[in-house]
Amino acid sequence: MTLAERYKAVRRRTEDICSYLQTEDYVVQPIADVSPPKWHIGHTTWFFETFILKPYVMGYQDYNPDYNYVFNSYYETVGARVIRTDRGNLSRPTVLDVYRYREYVDEAIYKFLCQEPSPEVEELFILGLNHEEQHQELLYYDIKYILGHNPLFPAYNPQYSSPEITEQEGFINIKEGVYEVGHTGEGFCFDNELNRHKVYLNAYQISTALVTNGEYLEFINSGGYQDFRYWHAEAWDWVKTNDVSAPMYWHQIDGEWHTYTFRGLEPLNLHTSVQHVSFYEAYAYATWKGMRLPSEFEWEVAAAQFNWGKSWEWTESAYLPYPGFSKAPGAIGEYNGKFMVNQKVLRGASEATPPGHSRITYRNFFHPNLRWHFTGIRLAK
Amino acid sequence: MTLAERYKAVRRRTEDICSYLQTEDYVVQPIADVSPPKWHIGHTTWFFETFILKPYVMGYQDYNPDYNYVFNSYYETVGARVIRTDRGNLSRPTVLDVYRYREYVDEAIYKFLCQEPSPEVEELFILGLNHEEQHQELLYYDIKYILGHNPLFPAYNPQYSSPEITEQEGFINIKEGVYEVGHTGEGFCFDNELNRHKVYLNAYQISTALVTNGEYLEFINSGGYQDFRYWHAEAWDWVKTNDVSAPMYWHQIDGEWHTYTFRGLEPLNLHTSVQHVSFYEAYAYATWKGMRLPSEFEWEVAAAQFNWGKSWEWTESAYLPYPGFSKAPGAIGEYNGKFMVNQKVLRGASEATPPGHSRITYRNFFHPNLRWHFTGIRLAK
Amino acid sequence: MTLAERYKAVRRRTEDICSYLQTEDYVVQPIADVSPPKWHIGHTTWFFETFILKPYVMGYQDYNPDYNYVFNSYYETVGARVIRTDRGNLSRPTVLDVYRYREYVDEAIYKFLCQEPSPEVEELFILGLNHEEQHQELLYYDIKYILGHNPLFPAYNPQYSSPEITEQEGFINIKEGVYEVGHTGEGFCFDNELNRHKVYLNAYQISTALVTNGEYLEFINSGGYQDFRYWHAEAWDWVKTNDVSAPMYWHQIDGEWHTYTFRGLEPLNLHTSVQHVSFYEAYAYATWKGMRLPSEFEWEVAAAQFNWGKSWEWTESAYLPYPGFSKAPGAIGEYNGKFMVNQKVLRGASEATPPGHSRITYRNFFHPNLRWHFTGIRLAK
Amino acid sequence: MTLAERYKAVRRRTEDICSYLQTEDYVVQPIADVSPPKWHIGHTTWFFETFILKPYVMGYQDYNPDYNYVFNSYYETVGARVIRTDRGNLSRPTVLDVYRYREYVDEAIYKFLCQEPSPEVEELFILGLNHEEQHQELLYYDIKYILGHNPLFPAYNPQYSSPEITEQEGFINIKEGVYEVGHTGEGFCFDNELNRHKVYLNAYQISTALVTNGEYLEFINSGGYQDFRYWHAEAWDWVKTNDVSAPMYWHQIDGEWHTYTFRGLEPLNLHTSVQHVSFYEAYAYATWKGMRLPSEFEWEVAAAQFNWGKSWEWTESAYLPYPGFSKAPGAIGEYNGKFMVNQKVLRGASEATPPGHSRITYRNFFHPNLRWHFTGIRLAK
Repeated sequence: MTLAERYKAVRRRTEDICSYLQTEDYVVQPIADVSPPKWHIGHTTWFFETFILKPYVMGYQDYNPDYNYVFNSYYETVGARVIRTDRGNLSRPTVLDVYRYREYVDEAIYKFLCQEPSPEVEELFILGLNHEEQHQELLYYDIKYILGHNPLFPAYNPQYSSPEITEQEGFINIKEGVYEVGHTGEGFCFDNELNRHKVYLNAYQISTALVTNGEYLEFINSGGYQDFRYWHAEAWDWVKTNDVSAPMYWHQIDGEWHTYTFRGLEPLNLHTSVQHVSFYEAYAYATWKGMRLPSEFEWEVAAAQFNWGKSWEWTESAYLPYPGFSKAPGAIGEYNGKFMVNQKVLRGASEATPPGHSRITYRNFFHPNLRWHFTGIRLAK
Repeated sequence: MTLAERYKAVRRRTEDICSYLQTEDYVVQPIADVSPPKWHIGHTTWFFETFILKPYVMGYQDYNPDYNYVFNSYYETVGARVIRTDRGNLSRPTVLDVYRYREYVDEAIYKFLCQEPSPEVEELFILGLNHEEQHQELLYYDIKYILGHNPLFPAYNPQYSSPEITEQEGFINIKEGVYEVGHTGEGFCFDNELNRHKVYLNAYQISTALVTNGEYLEFINSGGYQDFRYWHAEAWDWVKTNDVSAPMYWHQIDGEWHTYTFRGLEPLNLHTSVQHVSFYEAYAYATWKGMRLPSEFEWEVAAAQFNWGKSWEWTESAYLPYPGFSKAPGAIGEYNGKFMVNQKVLRGASEATPPGHSRITYRNFFHPNLRWHFTGIRLAK
Repeated sequence: MTLAERYKAVRRRTEDICSYLQTEDYVVQPIADVSPPKWHIGHTTWFFETFILKPYVMGYQDYNPDYNYVFNSYYETVGARVIRTDRGNLSRPTVLDVYRYREYVDEAIYKFLCQEPSPEVEELFILGLNHEEQHQELLYYDIKYILGHNPLFPAYNPQYSSPEITEQEGFINIKEGVYEVGHTGEGFCFDNELNRHKVYLNAYQISTALVTNGEYLEFINSGGYQDFRYWHAEAWDWVKTNDVSAPMYWHQIDGEWHTYTFRGLEPLNLHTSVQHVSFYEAYAYATWKGMRLPSEFEWEVAAAQFNWGKSWEWTESAYLPYPGFSKAPGAIGEYNGKFMVNQKVLRGASEATPPGHSRITYRNFFHPNLRWHFTGIRLAK
Repeated sequence: MTLAERYKAVRRRTEDICSYLQTEDYVVQPIADVSPPKWHIGHTTWFFETFILKPYVMGYQDYNPDYNYVFNSYYETVGARVIRTDRGNLSRPTVLDVYRYREYVDEAIYKFLCQEPSPEVEELFILGLNHEEQHQELLYYDIKYILGHNPLFPAYNPQYSSPEITEQEGFINIKEGVYEVGHTGEGFCFDNELNRHKVYLNAYQISTALVTNGEYLEFINSGGYQDFRYWHAEAWDWVKTNDVSAPMYWHQIDGEWHTYTFRGLEPLNLHTSVQHVSFYEAYAYATWKGMRLPSEFEWEVAAAQFNWGKSWEWTESAYLPYPGFSKAPGAIGEYNGKFMVNQKVLRGASEATPPGHSRITYRNFFHPNLRWHFTGIRLAK
């Protein structure tokens, strides 16, 4: 696949995800963590305009200079930005305007790609495409939140079906010793996966299957959300303050548990793996079960031996730099390093992850209280 | 005009106001005081469905039972409602859905109006139409806020033109004595305009013209926003906390004052009357000028002697019940009485007020810190 | 009584109020509205130092220049001040230091009063003494709050006894007409009681007795705190947000109602008048009863015909300036005018009011949600 | 030393620390993280009463059953507790009451210790004494905050002198390899120091000296607080929101830097190590310097080769359980595990740490934004 073809495929996939939306769905931002879909459409476009077209295409004309202000996300280097919680207040640019902007930038990119780009530019392209894939995943999270918190519970796509992952129950034994972790080889990786380095692991066991809705329901029914002993102190405050008593999207209707899916509200399937739990809940569940969550290195070392990819898996590990980690200079360098405090690492991938986007060394990260993304629980001991 | 014709005209006017909007403009809610335009469209429809169709039309089928939840405003009597600050998080029902709902209700109303309604029902109609006219005015406020706080400053209507009111500068003298205030006669009025009653007024003078942008600019330039002596204690906190230094929609660009109008951002016109000031600012201006704001009764007694209608005029009066005021029973009774604390009365009308909607006894009311509505300043002494 | 004698008596009374306190009781500030007692001791002293000693005594040496910062209250004119909510964070100056400061200032004042002061200074003295009497009343409110919100419910004074007011149940009829209200005569009054002016009152009836605990309990037992129809919209939010279900200081222990008094926790006396209700509650009670609260003018016109003085009585009136009201220049002018928005007038006096401090034209004022002061309910219709 | 002698010495030391305080200093709580000194006095007493006297002394009479409510800290197992932010609102029990309570419990303990306690009880004693030593350290932090944030800047003790630590500038080289970390041997340790386990470390260099005030001032003067590139994203928000521009207790007076010490406000000593920086600041300084903070294991492995003990040293490590960590059952088990999220490990000890309390495997932990404790910066690369 040429770079242009790959560019086209990734860009197209973003639009495909949004093809099920109504115009209004593109606009709202029910909580600060969620961005309006039209913002994702514009921001991924702004990325290519700002980091490729403006610096490398002589005479390139901005589509609209104000868009830098509107579609910048957290890049302090490149000027003012709309405060994140304000994104949902902006009715303009309209969805149509944003798609026009996207088309304009795409055309300029295709023209630019008629000639072979330099390795440096190609690297930026690869980063930009991986960046867009990350926003594709966020789009799924945000769309689910927007529709799943609407009192009408509209379906995103009545035909939506999740990938099935075959899991066998059991525990894998890993021996004590020095292991290597981190990215190696030629392929693309994010800066946070480097450098490959050695870690010492004690002997441990790790489950081959994720915790199911049925198993999690036992935790709920045994009073897990009412017993502070299973929770971190901050988690317990979170439970109390937000009156949490079940995973996100679970609703008890006339005594029966339901859950919102992309097809709408459905009876809870007990046999599928639990989703939309926070780290706090994953930890509390593991504690209740007398086990624990794996560290990210335990996960990475064992991962070749089990199936993964339905849900991002919370690990006990804090999101920290690897030995020898260094940020790229400039705006690109703001990508990962500055988030390396107060977040937890998740490993694997989810049904919302673009095919081929993740890998065994991939480090996803979120604050421990969040759960609008597609999370799951794997136990260790 | 028959009731059906009047109904048609009012309903049509609401849609005309919105005809300049993009779909996205209907959806957002940048602050709690502003409602998304589609909510106004739905709520005014819900009013006729709830208070006329459901109780008086046998066999009437709800368009959608969930809409009661979505479009109720503050009527505690008629069930749960979407928390006001959440309205802007709802992408569904879509704008098209809401217009379909409107059409469905309108058709049922027209059918119902084929027969002469009872006086009781006619009264409800009149209330519903006045209620819709109030929302027409709110639509103007909210649309201006939504577009005027967008970093692109889009025009609502490039041809928009404000009504001109002819004002002559000067002061009217009113003699001390007992006067009658409050509504009288056959026409419609809100419950808060009753009963007509006597008040004793001291001799006073009241200006025939509103304060202009130019005059207000003198207050700014003389340091009015930096001198606590002109402000109430709560007002001074408001100024400091919100870093207020000019009326809403004023922007100083390269040293020149501009203001956002329905036509977009324009240089400030010094000769037109100042708009979008809070009561706090109106009071501070009057104090700086060595004068004061009129009471609502001073305004009413003198109003026949000056022109009004460009901007609602802040009065010194708190919004309180007239002697003998009593609330209607049921949900309709929630209309006015429950707001009679901590608000200030405004008199007159604004360029956003539907023609014929206001009158000399009309009592508008807002919290003293608000200024997204079309306000102005008339001085007394 | 000479001015020096009067000064001595008032100053002494402040110290007597505090004589029941432990050192620790002087220091804390459980909510922003409450000030630590040592702050009252210092602030009333600061008032005489700032407005009399510094301007009128040549060569007067500040006791400690930092105290201006610590003991200023809300006088913007005279420099920086400790933010009100921070007062309870200050362990220094100690209680002993504050009493030493008080003694130092008192001595300077007595020396100054060896010579006859000018009428202008005498007026400042009278204001300062009335100001101190107001703080004596606040001391009672604040001490009650500090001890009554302590989980140990300590008594302030086991021998404390409230004054008894003889009340006869019934309603007084007042005829429609023009009445005069506001202060007149030679005696001291605050600026907000001027000017005496005419008002027109409709015929009304006003109760000769305050609502009792037993009557108020009927309101509670009939579900008054659960029925939004009795409440203003803002009041209903207040009830819900703060989970209010009874007057302040009421506690239901094993099914029996108790109330905290200056003697400690005691069974509720059904026959005494209800205290510590907010305006919101007074209004809701009156509405439930099918009556209303009097306006401040209705109260003033009728007051000679009933007994008052046990509790401040909420009126329907907003706190606004009288015709011709003007603020004194300088810091003294900050006294009253700047609070004339969003507050309600209370009339009468309470058991915490210094003898002789109040009068029939006295206008007390508080925000409608507050109730840590000694409030009560008188009905009108 | 017998257990009784050791008990006496530790208890005495707490009282010695407080001997410089005025009664008022015992009462206030300027921020949620700070506890009033009298609460520390009572809470450390409550610990011995609750975990030793009540379970092991037959017929022991509570000093006051309400004190369980007042002096419990975060032990959910043992009943209700005063919300942490409310501690500063309690004037009662008085300081004298709390000392009486302390005496009462001490006498009961001494009587109990006349007989040799069981090993299980002895272990509880050792924990209780270590717990009290931790509160001795917190007392220093809290007292410094209370006096150092008072506008009068009173001295705690004019003769106070910090321990001098001899540091030689330079870097120690540690070779790559497997190392053992964690507590070993007979002595007391907290559960979070177990189990001793192997870690793999890459080669690194670690400084023998802490960063000085003078060096830190260079960071400030070079614009370090204005350049987002040195900061984590959350840190940058913290800097902006709190308007941070220097370590806590630094004040620029007439262009000269001063710092509050236990002796009062003093000119900044450029040659002593910087204190009262948050993890965010420590990280930003290290980034600006082109270096990094050590991990807690890098610190532990190298610590025998440098001097430490003046300030707690921020590490890059998140506070997480060691392999095989398990909580003790019951309330004692709430001690450490439940804080193992969102906090950073600090190693070493500070001038406020009781002699002999810390050790090379000791793991202190705080949220990354805090800095009222005695912190410092050691660099690694």
